[in-house]
Amino acid sequence: MSDVDGPGDRYVVGVDYGTLSGRALVVRVSDGAELGTAVYEYARGVMETALPDGGRSLPPDWALQDPADYVGVLRYAVPAALADAGVDPSRVIGIATDFTACTVLPTLADGTPLCEVPDLRDRPHSWVKLWKHHAAQAHADRINALAHERAEPWINRYGGKISAEWQFAKGLQILDEDPEVYHRAERFVEAADWIVWQLCGTETRNICTAGYKGIRQDGRYPSAEYLAALDPGFVDFVGKLDGPLMAMGERAGSLTARAASWTGLPEGIAVAVGNVDAHVTAASAQALEPGHLVAIMGTSTCHVVNGATLGEVPGMCGVVEGGLSPGMWGYEAGQSGVGDIFGWFVEHAAPAGVASHERLSELAAAQPVGAHGLVALDWWNGNRSLLVNHDLSGLIVGMTLATRPQDVYRALLESTAYGTRMIIEAFADAGVPVRELVMAGGLTANPLLMQIYADVTDRPLSIIGSAQGPALGSAIHAAVAAGAYPDVYAASKAMGRVHRNVYRPQADHVRAYDALYAEYRLLHDHFGRGANDVMSRLRAIRNAAANGAAPATIPSEVAA
Amino acid sequence: MSDVDGPGDRYVVGVDYGTLSGRALVVRVSDGAELGTAVYEYARGVMETALPDGGRSLPPDWALQDPADYVGVLRYAVPAALADAGVDPSRVIGIATDFTACTVLPTLADGTPLCEVPDLRDRPHSWVKLWKHHAAQAHADRINALAHERAEPWINRYGGKISAEWQFAKGLQILDEDPEVYHRAERFVEAADWIVWQLCGTETRNICTAGYKGIRQDGRYPSAEYLAALDPGFVDFVGKLDGPLMAMGERAGSLTARAASWTGLPEGIAVAVGNVDAHVTAASAQALEPGHLVAIMGTSTCHVVNGATLGEVPGMCGVVEGGLSPGMWGYEAGQSGVGDIFGWFVEHAAPAGVASHERLSELAAAQPVGAHGLVALDWWNGNRSLLVNHDLSGLIVGMTLATRPQDVYRALLESTAYGTRMIIEAFADAGVPVRELVMAGGLTANPLLMQIYADVTDRPLSIIGSAQGPALGSAIHAAVAAGAYPDVYAASKAMGRVHRNVYRPQADHVRAYDALYAEYRLLHDHFGRGANDVMSRLRAIRNAAANGAAPATIPSEVAA
Repeated sequence: MSDVDGPGDRYVVGVDYGTLSGRALVVRVSDGAELGTAVYEYARGVMETALPDGGRSLPPDWALQDPADYVGVLRYAVPAALADAGVDPSRVIGIATDFTACTVLPTLADGTPLCEVPDLRDRPHSWVKLWKHHAAQAHADRINALAHERAEPWINRYGGKISAEWQFAKGLQILDEDPEVYHRAERFVEAADWIVWQLCGTETRNICTAGYKGIRQDGRYPSAEYLAALDPGFVDFVGKLDGPLMAMGERAGSLTARAASWTGLPEGIAVAVGNVDAHVTAASAQALEPGHLVAIMGTSTCHVVNGATLGEVPGMCGVVEGGLSPGMWGYEAGQSGVGDIFGWFVEHAAPAGVASHERLSELAAAQPVGAHGLVALDWWNGNRSLLVNHDLSGLIVGMTLATRPQDVYRALLESTAYGTRMIIEAFADAGVPVRELVMAGGLTANPLLMQIYADVTDRPLSIIGSAQGPALGSAIHAAVAAGAYPDVYAASKAMGRVHRNVYRPQADHVRAYDALYAEYRLLHDHFGRGANDVMSRLRAIRNAAANGAAPATIPSEVAA
Repeated sequence: MSDVDGPGDRYVVGVDYGTLSGRALVVRVSDGAELGTAVYEYARGVMETALPDGGRSLPPDWALQDPADYVGVLRYAVPAALADAGVDPSRVIGIATDFTACTVLPTLADGTPLCEVPDLRDRPHSWVKLWKHHAAQAHADRINALAHERAEPWINRYGGKISAEWQFAKGLQILDEDPEVYHRAERFVEAADWIVWQLCGTETRNICTAGYKGIRQDGRYPSAEYLAALDPGFVDFVGKLDGPLMAMGERAGSLTARAASWTGLPEGIAVAVGNVDAHVTAASAQALEPGHLVAIMGTSTCHVVNGATLGEVPGMCGVVEGGLSPGMWGYEAGQSGVGDIFGWFVEHAAPAGVASHERLSELAAAQPVGAHGLVALDWWNGNRSLLVNHDLSGLIVGMTLATRPQDVYRALLESTAYGTRMIIEAFADAGVPVRELVMAGGLTANPLLMQIYADVTDRPLSIIGSAQGPALGSAIHAAVAAGAYPDVYAASKAMGRVHRNVYRPQADHVRAYDALYAEYRLLHDHFGRGANDVMSRLRAIRNAAANGAAPATIPSEVAA
């Protein structure tokens, strides 16, 4: 995949840590050309049922990882990507990383993971808690209830709700369930920061995860009074989090000799401060200007957008000053089910003959807007947008005997676009305008879906120009940390790639979708805001039934 | 299929006229044993697009038949059934028929169908209008609006709405669209009565169709004032309907020589007055006692039940004194989508591997009540129960990524049971108690479905003991007309067959379904009674989109 390689060219390496693997990408500093890449699959993957090597079994909703796998990416994927690119490693001037978040681990003061301390290795709480470790919901509930009770000012920076995935919920779970591990954890560190520590030998903390995942707002963490009210033993938690805080794109340090030996890169090159996969993508999509909302669309969708001012948006994941890039307010929002709803339909609701995204999209694209007569609520995986309620579930209305699979499929595509429009309107209402959508992720390959998003949101749609948006975004931050560009804005302009206005809203479709969106909104508010809590009740009935009721018994006699 | 045939045994023939074919059944008078049967498929079937033999094309929603096909059943199916039974025709003492309704035709004074009058044969309105001819909706709307405006007392005997399928709507359509055919029609006669006229040479009218389909209540048809207000030319319509009215099971006359030659039956034997397929089934299911509701479950469900007193039930199809059997008030109600919803699911919403009723039922039966977390509104084909609104459509709520095809399938089975419970409760509220359900029709073969109905309705379920419920019911009426039994009650007891209490409600299921039914009811009233008319609006959007809007165009460029 190498372009023409000039004698004066310099390079950076971006490393994207995902849920199951890590990818290294070698990028030319001058123009962002992607010259070589390699992937390392984590040896231990995601531990959901037991610790490794015959270790203890884990309760439901747990998800752990082994930090040794993260080092594996440095040792195997980085050299392989360099070899794939065919560039001289001596011309690489910097490395940067992005990570899933909140993925977090307890360590000793020197950064040694507690799971590598021999007497703690068999303790589940000593391992890395992956972002999708969901066993701390009860702790998140306590954190939220107390925050509202005390009217903590920071709670509205998170749309009114802290997630069970985040640092305080996961830390409180450790204190509750394994106080010894909690007390032996001298540091509690995002994997995003831990991997940087391994690269440059110095502990740093990045503004992004500290803000979005660590409740750091206006220069401080939650107060000691609040923490004491939560649990007197939790007062010291902020002490385990606090570290040298650095802005996105800053140089955390220089590559150590040890990390140089892992990666094959020159000792002493720039190592950028840690970052998050969705958030670095704004740089690679050239979408750091206010009003350019980046939607990273996969199984779920993450939205990030810069704003010039602070606004409090109901249900958003968070707003952090400098969270995306220095000098702006970075906003994050999300839709908890998108591609996985479409995947569910193809796997579990489409008859033979049409059970593929390609075929269903082709059939659905042939129909006029509204011809299927359907509206759906896209809550198959709950709602983490305006409503922040995981007990919500999916709804479809309008089926007749003439309804065909492509009709329902199209209604599901549309429902996620309505969900995005709800978020955009909530941003606008809070004083954060969204003028353009920049789409990234695997779902950008579906032109019907993209056109629907343009029509439903009445916004032009740009598409990121890289299939490796996060790794390219990290490479951009590496170039900034290495001093090749004055800031991330300049680096994004030079190295990022986007196809502008690939999809434009069509006026007749926009009008037609306005009517359907009005129906979506009516259903959204009816089922999501308390008028009919049938979804929560059905969830409770389901859980009770699954936990004990006997299955129906049928008399064996059948009438002739 | 012959039992032992005694030398003194006597027999009757029941003929069931369906939508696509007619069936003759030879039955022993003493015990109702079914000895032989044969089916004749109508040569012309249902004419929906054009008149036969290259004749005129028909507008949408038309459905015509050829009365010659009805005679074909007498000429071919009856002799074949006699041969199949192997009984001596001289020992047959009576014949009776049941028909789809309202299936109706214009004739001369002697019963000659207008479509057999040479100069009228190319006129669509001269042919038989089949029950599912739905092109008279505008006429039904006029009839209903005027009835309510004038507070006509009969309108509440039909749940507040006359159907577009019935005699007055179809007759008014003829007057409007082809006044010459209307004026040349000396008689306007249900096919149920016309076939009896062919058998015995005498015109009669049966109480059942006169009441349920002809708006005959309290001994009279709608008044001349009402008809004149509808259309001055329509005042004479009642004159085309009125004829010698006879009760169910009465002897209309004796088999003519011509009909004897068609059928191979003895001239002079008893011919019973006409009847309707669903309504005669109450006799074959031994369900003529008040409180025994018969549900004939096929693509749709028809419910009939006798009551001791007159009640006005919202949305019911009708209540007719003596409509099912003499001396009682016969009630009819319906659900417009049942088996066809399940069929839709198997054909259009079930993935390969589970796309059969058998497999889906097996998987669904293994789960506890409520474990799927779903509730559906069974309105895929509108609602003709309490709401009587064909613009209503289907709804499912509660889907998650864990929802499987059998979950949705089971929710659809349950939704139709909730619909039946709504009807039962409406009957009870109107003073017509339902103590037991007697199930008939093809869907009785699904034990999961039957158990769900027992549990949801908290009623024991009996199953009819004949696969030919209507034809057996006609045979029972033939035996009464022939004087073999004093009345239809005695004949039903001797000749009908039912398996009592095959399915009994299970207390834990009943409790669980009470909670789910409460959710159904809440959704039913919200979407069916005006709080959110999204279904009607989606229907209008769909119709507008299908009638002209251009399909979405997608830019050919797709981002790399």
